[in-house]
Amino acid sequence: MKLEHYPHHPWKIIEEGWNPENVKASESIFSLGNGAMGQRANFEENYSGSTFQGSYVGGVYYPDKTKVGWWKNGYPEYFAKVLNAPNWIGIDLKINGESFDLNTAKAVKDYRRELNMENGLYTRSFTAELANGLEININSQRFLSLARPALGVIQYSISANQSITVEVSPYVDAGITNQDSNWDDQFWAIDAVEAQAAQAYIEAQTLKTAFSVGTFMGSRLFEENEELSVAGNPFKTSKKAGTIYQHVLAAGKTLSVVKLGGYVSSRKHEKAQLKSTAEGVIAEAKSYSFSDLLAEQTQAWATIWKSADITIEGDIKAQQAIRFNIFQLNQTYSGEDAGLNIGPKGFTGEKYGGSTYWDTEAYCIPFYMATKNQKVARNLLTYRYLQLDRAIENAEKLGFTNGAALYPMVTMNGEECHNEWEITFEEIHRNSAIAFAIFNYTRYTNDLSYIPEMGLEVLIGISRFWAQRASFSAAKNQYVILGVTGPNEYENNVNNNWYTNYSAQWCLRYTAQQIEALSITAPDELARIEAKTKFKKEELSRWKTTADQMYLPEDSTLNVVLQQDGFLDKEMVKVEDLNPAERPINQHWSWDRILRSPYIKQADVLQGMYFFEDHFDLDTLRRNFDFYEPFTVHESSLSPCVHAIIASKLNKNDQAYAFYLRTSRLDLDDYNAEVEEGLHITSMAGTWMSIVEGFAGMRVKEGQLSFQPNLPEAWEGLRFKINFRDTIYALHLGQGSFSCTVDKEGESSVIVNGKKQPFTGSLELKL
Amino acid sequence: MKLEHYPHHPWKIIEEGWNPENVKASESIFSLGNGAMGQRANFEENYSGSTFQGSYVGGVYYPDKTKVGWWKNGYPEYFAKVLNAPNWIGIDLKINGESFDLNTAKAVKDYRRELNMENGLYTRSFTAELANGLEININSQRFLSLARPALGVIQYSISANQSITVEVSPYVDAGITNQDSNWDDQFWAIDAVEAQAAQAYIEAQTLKTAFSVGTFMGSRLFEENEELSVAGNPFKTSKKAGTIYQHVLAAGKTLSVVKLGGYVSSRKHEKAQLKSTAEGVIAEAKSYSFSDLLAEQTQAWATIWKSADITIEGDIKAQQAIRFNIFQLNQTYSGEDAGLNIGPKGFTGEKYGGSTYWDTEAYCIPFYMATKNQKVARNLLTYRYLQLDRAIENAEKLGFTNGAALYPMVTMNGEECHNEWEITFEEIHRNSAIAFAIFNYTRYTNDLSYIPEMGLEVLIGISRFWAQRASFSAAKNQYVILGVTGPNEYENNVNNNWYTNYSAQWCLRYTAQQIEALSITAPDELARIEAKTKFKKEELSRWKTTADQMYLPEDSTLNVVLQQDGFLDKEMVKVEDLNPAERPINQHWSWDRILRSPYIKQADVLQGMYFFEDHFDLDTLRRNFDFYEPFTVHESSLSPCVHAIIASKLNKNDQAYAFYLRTSRLDLDDYNAEVEEGLHITSMAGTWMSIVEGFAGMRVKEGQLSFQPNLPEAWEGLRFKINFRDTIYALHLGQGSFSCTVDKEGESSVIVNGKKQPFTGSLELKL
Repeated sequence: MKLEHYPHHPWKIIEEGWNPENVKASESIFSLGNGAMGQRANFEENYSGSTFQGSYVGGVYYPDKTKVGWWKNGYPEYFAKVLNAPNWIGIDLKINGESFDLNTAKAVKDYRRELNMENGLYTRSFTAELANGLEININSQRFLSLARPALGVIQYSISANQSITVEVSPYVDAGITNQDSNWDDQFWAIDAVEAQAAQAYIEAQTLKTAFSVGTFMGSRLFEENEELSVAGNPFKTSKKAGTIYQHVLAAGKTLSVVKLGGYVSSRKHEKAQLKSTAEGVIAEAKSYSFSDLLAEQTQAWATIWKSADITIEGDIKAQQAIRFNIFQLNQTYSGEDAGLNIGPKGFTGEKYGGSTYWDTEAYCIPFYMATKNQKVARNLLTYRYLQLDRAIENAEKLGFTNGAALYPMVTMNGEECHNEWEITFEEIHRNSAIAFAIFNYTRYTNDLSYIPEMGLEVLIGISRFWAQRASFSAAKNQYVILGVTGPNEYENNVNNNWYTNYSAQWCLRYTAQQIEALSITAPDELARIEAKTKFKKEELSRWKTTADQMYLPEDSTLNVVLQQDGFLDKEMVKVEDLNPAERPINQHWSWDRILRSPYIKQADVLQGMYFFEDHFDLDTLRRNFDFYEPFTVHESSLSPCVHAIIASKLNKNDQAYAFYLRTSRLDLDDYNAEVEEGLHITSMAGTWMSIVEGFAGMRVKEGQLSFQPNLPEAWEGLRFKINFRDTIYALHLGQGSFSCTVDKEGESSVIVNGKKQPFTGSLELKL
Repeated sequence: MKLEHYPHHPWKIIEEGWNPENVKASESIFSLGNGAMGQRANFEENYSGSTFQGSYVGGVYYPDKTKVGWWKNGYPEYFAKVLNAPNWIGIDLKINGESFDLNTAKAVKDYRRELNMENGLYTRSFTAELANGLEININSQRFLSLARPALGVIQYSISANQSITVEVSPYVDAGITNQDSNWDDQFWAIDAVEAQAAQAYIEAQTLKTAFSVGTFMGSRLFEENEELSVAGNPFKTSKKAGTIYQHVLAAGKTLSVVKLGGYVSSRKHEKAQLKSTAEGVIAEAKSYSFSDLLAEQTQAWATIWKSADITIEGDIKAQQAIRFNIFQLNQTYSGEDAGLNIGPKGFTGEKYGGSTYWDTEAYCIPFYMATKNQKVARNLLTYRYLQLDRAIENAEKLGFTNGAALYPMVTMNGEECHNEWEITFEEIHRNSAIAFAIFNYTRYTNDLSYIPEMGLEVLIGISRFWAQRASFSAAKNQYVILGVTGPNEYENNVNNNWYTNYSAQWCLRYTAQQIEALSITAPDELARIEAKTKFKKEELSRWKTTADQMYLPEDSTLNVVLQQDGFLDKEMVKVEDLNPAERPINQHWSWDRILRSPYIKQADVLQGMYFFEDHFDLDTLRRNFDFYEPFTVHESSLSPCVHAIIASKLNKNDQAYAFYLRTSRLDLDDYNAEVEEGLHITSMAGTWMSIVEGFAGMRVKEGQLSFQPNLPEAWEGLRFKINFRDTIYALHLGQGSFSCTVDKEGESSVIVNGKKQPFTGSLELKL
């Protein structure tokens, strides 16, 4: 796909012109989601060209049997995969008795896709030339209702330049496959296929996990906005059911089918109630017109944007990008269900199968904390709390004892899904990110109740893990952590990854502090937790010893910390001196060559200095940034954001802007030539952080936000606004600072350059 | 399988008593091979119980598509697999119209298997009770002819206590499967199935590799040693062909079918000639009786034993074990075909698929050098020479240039087959073993012609690899080798594995020495090689610098070399302090736990000190042995032999004996509870080394052998003889030394305790 395929627009993503080679990429870009379900931008009508079909129901997965060349003890038996669910969007179309298929049309004109991010409406329209000068126009509008999580709505309109016979057949279809299947297993068993007048229903159950999902549809037929009273003919086969409408349409007239479809699942309803629930959803939706439902959707998105929008007036490329990222994050996760999380591809593809990575804690939580009710961030923490037992089991499988917890690298239900030893068993720093998220939530919200309610149990499990995983080196007379993979996955099985050791030390100390604090503020709660976790006071002294004697590699000559033992033994050729033809190195170099090179896939030392920035002075930060940035290839979508934030802090504003552009338009400009597999959802939160924590310099402490803007030159004179929860802050280029307090109701007060001001609504601050 | 299932006997392996659970283990133990083909000890008659069918044709393989969870750049597309070939041993048996099957017999008595290692004859006999008091006796004798590499011979005899109708149907059958298939591919396409009087033939071709293999059989029928003139009825199906003989057999009489079968392949013959070649083999074999053919076989084995036997009179357990090992090594590889090699499981199973590992150079070559014509060892070296171009291609895939060669970890035809990055890309020390084998061959045979003819090109390719693979560490101001896996595979991706660095240094220097030597002794040859390899003199100085500045990790406090950087940061708990319930650790610990432990799977530092023993004084050897042995778990079958040899050299004779027993009876006593998958062929050569280089203390230099016996206490007073080529040396317990020279014709002279003696034949030396 060519870069800059999608023109710049502040609120819309647009594709113009028909190109079958771009279908799969645009199916990703124009994906829709409402937190509960998601849908790639597949065509409604049958399409015989190359397509990647994807319909997803949040939290419904299949445990695909692990595929591995060489088994290692400790590997999980399966990989929980996001599932392609039965199709609810399909509308078969016959014109004068011939099936319509864009792939076989004589010509396609005025082909256009548009995603309006302001209200979540996706539109596709085109004119197709068929035989004998017949031209038909299709206009399809679609959205997934935020207000009604089970419901998707389509208005599919047909007109032609001649009188035609139209057969239009909305349907549901369980005859689907998964691209990303290890063994071509059957994932679904069909329990019921039912069709009745204008409605159809398929109930299917995932094999092994036994999630029951009802895929439903209702339909209404209109000519020129007048509803037709035809009932249609219900039809069904073993896997498909729907309604056939036949209609003679005069030239220039428009026939529209409104399809109301979606999913109800046993995650939310009794299996026996699925069908009646679906019927209720249809019945209620039918009592509204398409425009009413769309108005409801527009309102729901307006509410989201009010507390999440970022305005960069005058930099349309940056503007479109950040809105696209914010839009996708909201499509992926609405925060209402503590059983759901944020998969790296959200609802836009199957890759990375399992739902939850450390991305959630390290990159996503700040976005949801800042833009949504704090309950949402709390739900993300609770997700891990609910999986603590599984994390303890996971650690036991690897030889740990006494309630030590190792959270999985990739998971759906709390069990580990991944099966590369160097990642699954060794990328254990993920544990620290989960502890850090608890700290981060607490400092952001000043909600001190989470730690006694849930957080401390998680922290104890994690600290027990670190205390057992660190081992004493007689040679160094310090504690070491051997055999790990740090955030930089271009190093495997290294000793003493600085980030891992430093964050483990922090975990041990932070947990001990929380225990000490609760012993004063909530001794009863603490007693309950200690009893529940069988915690012994001796553990505290072991943690203290381990933390105090933790080995942290550094180089005294360069005055930087060392990414890991032996890092300086490498050939220290900078990235800029690499042959550009060999980049990205992960597509050109064998794995061993990457491993022995100094190149950093993703911020590692700098990730640690970002998390714990109060621990390092600016000079230290600068020395380490200046040392590590030249070796960083940023071949992870999660890397540039951290460098952008640190660059901003170091007043390297234009370097920060370059990082920002790279991360924010990753999918829109398809830098990695793989957007057809789906979008990089979790890195989109990193993009948001680049702006908010980078350019705006937002920091939070005890619920109090402060801003220290460091805007790029490109934004000089532009209006730049960031929305949080229910409040908008606008920054203009310039030095200065302001801070504000946001309480739970969104009441705020602001201190601008040291002067307190009342603050409500849309005030613009001129610094 | 219970240990010590097979009773001790100096020349035989015996199994007594019917136990279906032991069928698969005994199918491995009683395997037959003649270097060209091999056959697990599967039953001739149909068996419905659990069995692992295996018939193998040397050098015939299939490229099974790689199965891997997470692809890494540089992985090979396929894994060349040993193939289960069409079955030539099958004999269907019906008694009174009922198919005979040991698994469904009412009772089985006097079940016995016997493998006579003196002549390679395998016998199976039993009495089976059928309905109505009918008892039948089966005696089956089988061998694979050493004299006629295409031929296997079976004499299958039946008698009964009642008069019976016998239908006996020898057949060939291509309806076979492979256990170890990644994708359940079809491996064979059948080209022809033919049956005629007393003969049958199937021609099948391997898919992808297109090896054509003719599987053939001829048969003769005897009653009480009188040949019957019945022709039998030929039969065939789409995959199977044979001859049905029907016969009424009086009580107490014996009916025998002699089956002459085996394989002809397109590796040795034109495809168009395969069938006529097979017919020729059958016709010629039919001109001999079973006893004549057996006598020929006995003679061929006598010739082998004359130059390969080891006698340990009085230690029957050790005696049986060493003969079993020598027998299997000779079954696996006869040395006549430079296109064949020694697979870790030989012809006894499918595991490890590819044929050739560094086992050949590190463990097997000394055995074949000492016990066979030196052409055999030369053929093993030539095998690698013929694959040099592929090794250069392999290195290019990993980013190396200018003729650098990296031999594959596992190969069949010179291409890499393996797909674990930490092994395939990083266990690069295999290159050094291939160079070492050239040195070893030269010092053993004093054949100085191999290096200019072939060896130097290989050495140049290997040295180029090392010079490029070593990198300069500014921090250490030395050359380092980063990111490797040493012989101890319980460490992955380590820096500066001492064995790898030391052996690389040696390769660079050894190659330079050969070039310097040839510049004087054979300048024309050198010029030819330099032109062919585009060698430039500047390379020599780079090699010298790299070798001279090679970093070799060591610990000055302990005064030992270090297995790799950071080894002493581990928790140094000795093996003896491990919980025995957690051993072997590879069955109880997750991979990360193994990796960060100090436990050594297989000799690593000590492997290097074994290879280059002249470089280290006894004190150094002792310190390193005493340091590393307590951390060595010997979970590779290739480990104890090296420790045994070094223990002998250090006068730790009883420790050496313990290692010897562990390695020599690994399969017979099924220590690892997996003998049913096949035998550990390459480690059997290590067992031989334990005796010859360990207990007998044999060393070779410039073609001159010396012995410095260090016998275990258990052998006090026993007669202990070692056969080499055509000469026998006998040692009695005691101190002393002798050396001898063996020329190419086997003429020898011996120096005993400094005194030269003439020496021929079976002289026993009393030291």
